[in-house]
Amino acid sequence: MTHTGTATGVVSVQINESLDEYYRRVRGFSEQLCETLKTEDYVVQTMPDVSPTKWHLAHTSWFFEAFLLSTYQPGYESPHPLYGYLFNSYYVQIGERFDRPHRGLLSRPTVEEVFAYRAHVDRHVLDLLSTADAAQLAEIAPIVTLGLNHEQQHQELLLTDIKHVLSVNPLRPVYRQEAGGRRENAGGSRQDAGVQRNVIPSSPPEADVSREHAAARTGAHEAPPLNWISFDEGLYEIGYEGEGFRFDNEEPRHREFIEAFQLASRPVTAGEFMAFIEDDGYRRAELWLSDGAATVEAEGWEAPLYWELHDGAWWQFTLSGFRPVQPDEPVTHVSLYEADAFARWAGARLPGEAEWEVAAATVPPEGNFADTGCCHPAALSDFEAEGLQQMFGDVWEWTRSPYAPYPGYQPPPGAVGEYNGKFMSSQNVLRGGSCATSRDHIRNTYRNFFYPHQRWQFTGIRLAKDAGGAR
Amino acid sequence: MTHTGTATGVVSVQINESLDEYYRRVRGFSEQLCETLKTEDYVVQTMPDVSPTKWHLAHTSWFFEAFLLSTYQPGYESPHPLYGYLFNSYYVQIGERFDRPHRGLLSRPTVEEVFAYRAHVDRHVLDLLSTADAAQLAEIAPIVTLGLNHEQQHQELLLTDIKHVLSVNPLRPVYRQEAGGRRENAGGSRQDAGVQRNVIPSSPPEADVSREHAAARTGAHEAPPLNWISFDEGLYEIGYEGEGFRFDNEEPRHREFIEAFQLASRPVTAGEFMAFIEDDGYRRAELWLSDGAATVEAEGWEAPLYWELHDGAWWQFTLSGFRPVQPDEPVTHVSLYEADAFARWAGARLPGEAEWEVAAATVPPEGNFADTGCCHPAALSDFEAEGLQQMFGDVWEWTRSPYAPYPGYQPPPGAVGEYNGKFMSSQNVLRGGSCATSRDHIRNTYRNFFYPHQRWQFTGIRLAKDAGGAR
Amino acid sequence: MTHTGTATGVVSVQINESLDEYYRRVRGFSEQLCETLKTEDYVVQTMPDVSPTKWHLAHTSWFFEAFLLSTYQPGYESPHPLYGYLFNSYYVQIGERFDRPHRGLLSRPTVEEVFAYRAHVDRHVLDLLSTADAAQLAEIAPIVTLGLNHEQQHQELLLTDIKHVLSVNPLRPVYRQEAGGRRENAGGSRQDAGVQRNVIPSSPPEADVSREHAAARTGAHEAPPLNWISFDEGLYEIGYEGEGFRFDNEEPRHREFIEAFQLASRPVTAGEFMAFIEDDGYRRAELWLSDGAATVEAEGWEAPLYWELHDGAWWQFTLSGFRPVQPDEPVTHVSLYEADAFARWAGARLPGEAEWEVAAATVPPEGNFADTGCCHPAALSDFEAEGLQQMFGDVWEWTRSPYAPYPGYQPPPGAVGEYNGKFMSSQNVLRGGSCATSRDHIRNTYRNFFYPHQRWQFTGIRLAKDAGGAR
Amino acid sequence: MTHTGTATGVVSVQINESLDEYYRRVRGFSEQLCETLKTEDYVVQTMPDVSPTKWHLAHTSWFFEAFLLSTYQPGYESPHPLYGYLFNSYYVQIGERFDRPHRGLLSRPTVEEVFAYRAHVDRHVLDLLSTADAAQLAEIAPIVTLGLNHEQQHQELLLTDIKHVLSVNPLRPVYRQEAGGRRENAGGSRQDAGVQRNVIPSSPPEADVSREHAAARTGAHEAPPLNWISFDEGLYEIGYEGEGFRFDNEEPRHREFIEAFQLASRPVTAGEFMAFIEDDGYRRAELWLSDGAATVEAEGWEAPLYWELHDGAWWQFTLSGFRPVQPDEPVTHVSLYEADAFARWAGARLPGEAEWEVAAATVPPEGNFADTGCCHPAALSDFEAEGLQQMFGDVWEWTRSPYAPYPGYQPPPGAVGEYNGKFMSSQNVLRGGSCATSRDHIRNTYRNFFYPHQRWQFTGIRLAKDAGGAR
Repeated sequence: MTHTGTATGVVSVQINESLDEYYRRVRGFSEQLCETLKTEDYVVQTMPDVSPTKWHLAHTSWFFEAFLLSTYQPGYESPHPLYGYLFNSYYVQIGERFDRPHRGLLSRPTVEEVFAYRAHVDRHVLDLLSTADAAQLAEIAPIVTLGLNHEQQHQELLLTDIKHVLSVNPLRPVYRQEAGGRRENAGGSRQDAGVQRNVIPSSPPEADVSREHAAARTGAHEAPPLNWISFDEGLYEIGYEGEGFRFDNEEPRHREFIEAFQLASRPVTAGEFMAFIEDDGYRRAELWLSDGAATVEAEGWEAPLYWELHDGAWWQFTLSGFRPVQPDEPVTHVSLYEADAFARWAGARLPGEAEWEVAAATVPPEGNFADTGCCHPAALSDFEAEGLQQMFGDVWEWTRSPYAPYPGYQPPPGAVGEYNGKFMSSQNVLRGGSCATSRDHIRNTYRNFFYPHQRWQFTGIRLAKDAGGAR
Repeated sequence: MTHTGTATGVVSVQINESLDEYYRRVRGFSEQLCETLKTEDYVVQTMPDVSPTKWHLAHTSWFFEAFLLSTYQPGYESPHPLYGYLFNSYYVQIGERFDRPHRGLLSRPTVEEVFAYRAHVDRHVLDLLSTADAAQLAEIAPIVTLGLNHEQQHQELLLTDIKHVLSVNPLRPVYRQEAGGRRENAGGSRQDAGVQRNVIPSSPPEADVSREHAAARTGAHEAPPLNWISFDEGLYEIGYEGEGFRFDNEEPRHREFIEAFQLASRPVTAGEFMAFIEDDGYRRAELWLSDGAATVEAEGWEAPLYWELHDGAWWQFTLSGFRPVQPDEPVTHVSLYEADAFARWAGARLPGEAEWEVAAATVPPEGNFADTGCCHPAALSDFEAEGLQQMFGDVWEWTRSPYAPYPGYQPPPGAVGEYNGKFMSSQNVLRGGSCATSRDHIRNTYRNFFYPHQRWQFTGIRLAKDAGGAR
Repeated sequence: MTHTGTATGVVSVQINESLDEYYRRVRGFSEQLCETLKTEDYVVQTMPDVSPTKWHLAHTSWFFEAFLLSTYQPGYESPHPLYGYLFNSYYVQIGERFDRPHRGLLSRPTVEEVFAYRAHVDRHVLDLLSTADAAQLAEIAPIVTLGLNHEQQHQELLLTDIKHVLSVNPLRPVYRQEAGGRRENAGGSRQDAGVQRNVIPSSPPEADVSREHAAARTGAHEAPPLNWISFDEGLYEIGYEGEGFRFDNEEPRHREFIEAFQLASRPVTAGEFMAFIEDDGYRRAELWLSDGAATVEAEGWEAPLYWELHDGAWWQFTLSGFRPVQPDEPVTHVSLYEADAFARWAGARLPGEAEWEVAAATVPPEGNFADTGCCHPAALSDFEAEGLQQMFGDVWEWTRSPYAPYPGYQPPPGAVGEYNGKFMSSQNVLRGGSCATSRDHIRNTYRNFFYPHQRWQFTGIRLAKDAGGAR
Repeated sequence: MTHTGTATGVVSVQINESLDEYYRRVRGFSEQLCETLKTEDYVVQTMPDVSPTKWHLAHTSWFFEAFLLSTYQPGYESPHPLYGYLFNSYYVQIGERFDRPHRGLLSRPTVEEVFAYRAHVDRHVLDLLSTADAAQLAEIAPIVTLGLNHEQQHQELLLTDIKHVLSVNPLRPVYRQEAGGRRENAGGSRQDAGVQRNVIPSSPPEADVSREHAAARTGAHEAPPLNWISFDEGLYEIGYEGEGFRFDNEEPRHREFIEAFQLASRPVTAGEFMAFIEDDGYRRAELWLSDGAATVEAEGWEAPLYWELHDGAWWQFTLSGFRPVQPDEPVTHVSLYEADAFARWAGARLPGEAEWEVAAATVPPEGNFADTGCCHPAALSDFEAEGLQQMFGDVWEWTRSPYAPYPGYQPPPGAVGEYNGKFMSSQNVLRGGSCATSRDHIRNTYRNFFYPHQRWQFTGIRLAKDAGGAR
């Protein structure tokens, strides 16, 4: 059996999975992501952008309360009358919210109570799904689907937020051991789970530094060469069209005239970004947007987030521990400002989102996603591959397109209309998903968006050029 | 004789005026704008966005030093070796700058010294123009033209900055008496030049309030009805093409596909904006962009900048004194957030900049400009007029288009390339000029830009709609 | 057997308790105070002044590591090399510290690990005590005694900090049910442990409000009358003298000339403070110190910390739940500014610390302390009592004396000399201990100190007057 | 003829000068101090502590309006109804005030209008003085005397404020050429009045640096040795007694018991302070009060205010230009924190204010004052002098005494009672006056007060020790 859902007036299809299987799978994945966490990890908020893990777990449950159960389960009662107030994120039409930057001040409800809250909501949703008739299901399915896509977005935030939480701790806790693969010998992978005992803040184990640094310098871990793929000018159709689930901001499909352009075959690597740093990239104001230069100065940025220089080598905090930066892995945790300055330095530019979408339509949406458990962008190892690589997964790719409504865009009525539209100012579009995105969540037309200075997501860089070769 | 100039690789034409006449006229207008100021007025900086008048006068002179005299006048010496440091605004490739928010901390050079600096620069520029041969003139003309267009931009800033400076003073100084016309009986127009003696901060003269308020309520000063002008879908050409002066950000001319749309025949009036306020517009979060709602709360906004409520009637500070808001004048001093919320409230939206440009191409660039000495947007009095009114002058019209490079955009090489390109993030485009813009400075393709929260410029609102009538 | 300790060159005596019994008792009390806490409660930091509970538990253990075990237990190893960095509070001579305002960002070490850390330290300290010979014990005893007095100070902070943490939570968690007594019928006492289910943020249960409010208005819970006790002028000796434990700031004993004065027989009550509020006390700037008036305006203070007005009645958050303010209990959680303004309003003044000490020498150091488990200042019920009441326990009494060194004061050498001396600027002295102080921790000569704006401690007001009756 | 005045219930005597001569002299001195200023200099406010010169000129005039003319000149009218609002400083009982940190935002009234305001007030005050009968004069004299002492305090602020204003200007304007004397050959004295043309911000003229630096190194300009003067323990009388003018905070005279102590014969010199800096004094946290260490870090302090290191030599901005620091001049522009840390480093301490007063009673109140026109503390040149030197004038001497009321202190009733009492928290007492104080303004009992972090006044250091030689 298949299920369909119309969220924001749209039909979603997940083949070969019943709606309740779908519900159980996505909801279960949230809890799976928490398996290695200690109770204390769920509580902390290290900056206003970050939410505590337990808030994510509760907020995604509240979403089903607010948009599904309150309407379709007569007499439904929340475990506590204040949960609606505590776990609403930004839906102003639904009522007051607890102030976002203060989420980390709440010790209660406890983690145990939050899991009980999730179970409570799950019980009622699954009960609703099992008792609903076909007509009701048709009405309910899109809301459930929206709720699950919403939860998948929070799963990604949960991962990037917990990374930030663990990163500020001098004990350098490890979220999840690396599964193995090429990186199994790297510095960060030998520790037991839990905190890294011997890593003091001022310098990592000497042996590791020199060995890894040597590797970086000798060209080990080199990435395949960057090629340019060309696309013709033309009047293209952009935006979502079809029966599956999509967010309102991907619509309506519409025409856009695009000049001929070229797109890089793969993302910029950490090694390439090191060359930018070594070329004094962070201090050459002429490479930067004006707001970017001001941010670099105010924040004292000298490298991507989580990078630290130890004895001449770049190390980074990852969800699998503190370890040397691999030159061949895609650079990540860069802001739009850094992406834009790098592109200018490289004699290129960032792609427009329409360019990206036109190009991405030529490749399947496959890649390194959260489903693999990897938690970090992976180096491209196939030196023979042709065409566009790593368009999906690994790192979100900054576009130079400000986040704006498509021509004819209409947010759906009611509180659910606040989902996307009201954020259409001062942010830029990112495309393609990352290693923290779920595989079945991403699409060619998917529009993510963040402020130009934000960089705690797995954000990266793909270069573009005008057809003539100029940027 | 005509002169031509290529700024940023472009040819500028000012018919029937020699280059030195052009230079004298524009430079002279800066000083003309200062005629009513006291020495003390030149010094003050009331917020980081505002620069002191004497800084504008000096900076625009420094521009000719830095980009013209230093290259074409061998041995040229500035009156003081530190002027270059003090009066550079943001050209990082030229060297260190004095920190912008601290411009108001400088009592020296004095106003007299700044005027002497201007005379010094003028003497050398005019000397250069009178001695240059044809080949040299061809080289110099575009730089002079750029410098004069730059100065015209600062003339507009000088006006909006001095308005802010005078506005925070409880004595409510009058910059310039109104010339007369329909508003001659308004509250603000009877004072002598200088400070308004009897206007205490807590309430304006009672008689005025009641009379004017009555007028507002009884429908006096009503504006002509707002009509919708329709435009067809199509692949349009956008951007500057021709031989005249233009800024680099207006190029290259390129194709854009535009859906059919409608544009309002005139800007939104103050009276219409009052209705938005009365309908609780500032407090209904669902009308606002998320950043806008946060700004409204943080800043405590309840009306456009300079508006004050006295005994139930709206008053405003203008360059001609403190006086009642006229319901039929275009609303001004609104941020993008307010413009966008108003449009949503009105069931419309803001125009895209391409839409605006396509529409504006159908009307001549005429209107209420700084040349008229009016200093405030004027009510439209012709109830019979057809088609687009007030597209130029009066108020800058916010578009919903973020400020971004046109496809193929290339900033010119060198420091002059910092003029526009590096500001292309987080700002929105405004079109059409205002009552503080010089008539010969504006064009159909002219792209102004400010941050969404800024509102000390003469910014206003023109509504748009999709062809179907939806926003 | 008795034990003696010389801390900072001083001998301490705890009769009838061995040093290891003393150690076990005080260390055990810290853990006893945590019995009702959830793991999540240990993690949160709600303002820079507040430290997370787990930090208190770890820091007090680190103190024994840094000042005792590192010297007297050769080869002692901390469970983690970074604990010294994480749990040093302000001893700059001992090394780098983790930034105080960021203590709440640390999820690790976990609460369980912190308790293991305590056990580890306890094991080594008790081992040291049991194996030391008499000479070594004489050396060690003062350090252990200092460490335990230090821990008792943190026990008080732990209580006031956890009160702040729970207070910002809209669920209004209860730290500890009230033991009973006269307040057993109050609004806050009927809930089960854990969060208060039915208390929504905007208003407490109606029934409670009206009943309690009625009580407040009808004069129930009235306090005994305030009398004035007189003291003669003279050259007094002030400061600690004897063999017991004391902090260095209580020495040396020295002479001070004091004019004749009067001291109030009891602290100011909440009911009396309500009268100050109702008389517009917070808005009459002439009653306030200049810095106080600025703080009131900046912070929007309208009542003591934790007070909320609901339907005309004052409620307060207490460690035993949210309940009406009792008019006869001592007012608490007031800043020096509020204490000083109240005194001026009442035609009195705050006592000097020498006056307080002279007066307090006439009564035994008995009162309502943390040992009783009460957690809140208690109303005085004995209407017949004569002389000074509640000089010890209940609330710390603000003095008008800035915290300064006594003549001849010398901090001890080394890091332990940072304990008190370096805080002698911009703070005021408080005397007498509070309901969160341990009975065996307080003395007549004990000098506590906080900044004039701080009020999250159990701080209160005792009035004084010059002999003539003037303030 | 003599005049007497009772301010705050006190009689003031100025021998051989009539009250109107006294008035003219002090009022005239304010204007004399402005003789070298440009109009622009009067307007600027460089930090919240600083007021614009024109504000000082107007505020001191308003004082006579508010406390004298409004009561004794029936029908007196201020030139503008808003002047009372604009020029009230902090007298809350008199009404609303214009926000202090925003005084620099006011371009109007102009400097000319402010001088006209002064003339207007002077006319009315002198008219009042000439027409008042003896009884009225007896009533008025103390108010006039208070107003003139108030004006003298603002004359000192005017000097220190304009120093700060000129100091932030990269043009390094000179307030007043040095009169000559030993310093006539110093680097700063050769410039013409006005800005220093050749002093660029990054380094002073090379020749000067090397010559002066050499002088500093070779021991030229050495100060006389510092001796210790001893004082016995005893019960002393402290505070003002007599018929002259004094502020309320100097009363009542009362007894204080003081232990035996020693006081340094002269203030700490700049050369001695350089040794503290070279000994890493600013970076050794154990020398600092806790709040001081935090301030040093937050502000990045590395030397006294106005000091700059150029090629290894210390230069300073003075009212007479930018010039090398003289090793033998008293160090100035240090905060209490710096004074306290220096004293600890030197094995001494700061004096208590009672100690200072007892010692100062043994020497006449003579020294280097504003009357000399020097504008900077002067080196002591008499190597043979015995006893206490430079107790008055040159630099205000920080005491370790927090500013608190004397026993029995009563502020006078009404708004004038706000003069001193409400500032008695978190500040420290300074004694002795400075080179910016008027000679007839200072007294042995005079209590000045500033916050521990403030250092834009001419503040310096005199060391003290306990009798035993310990600090």
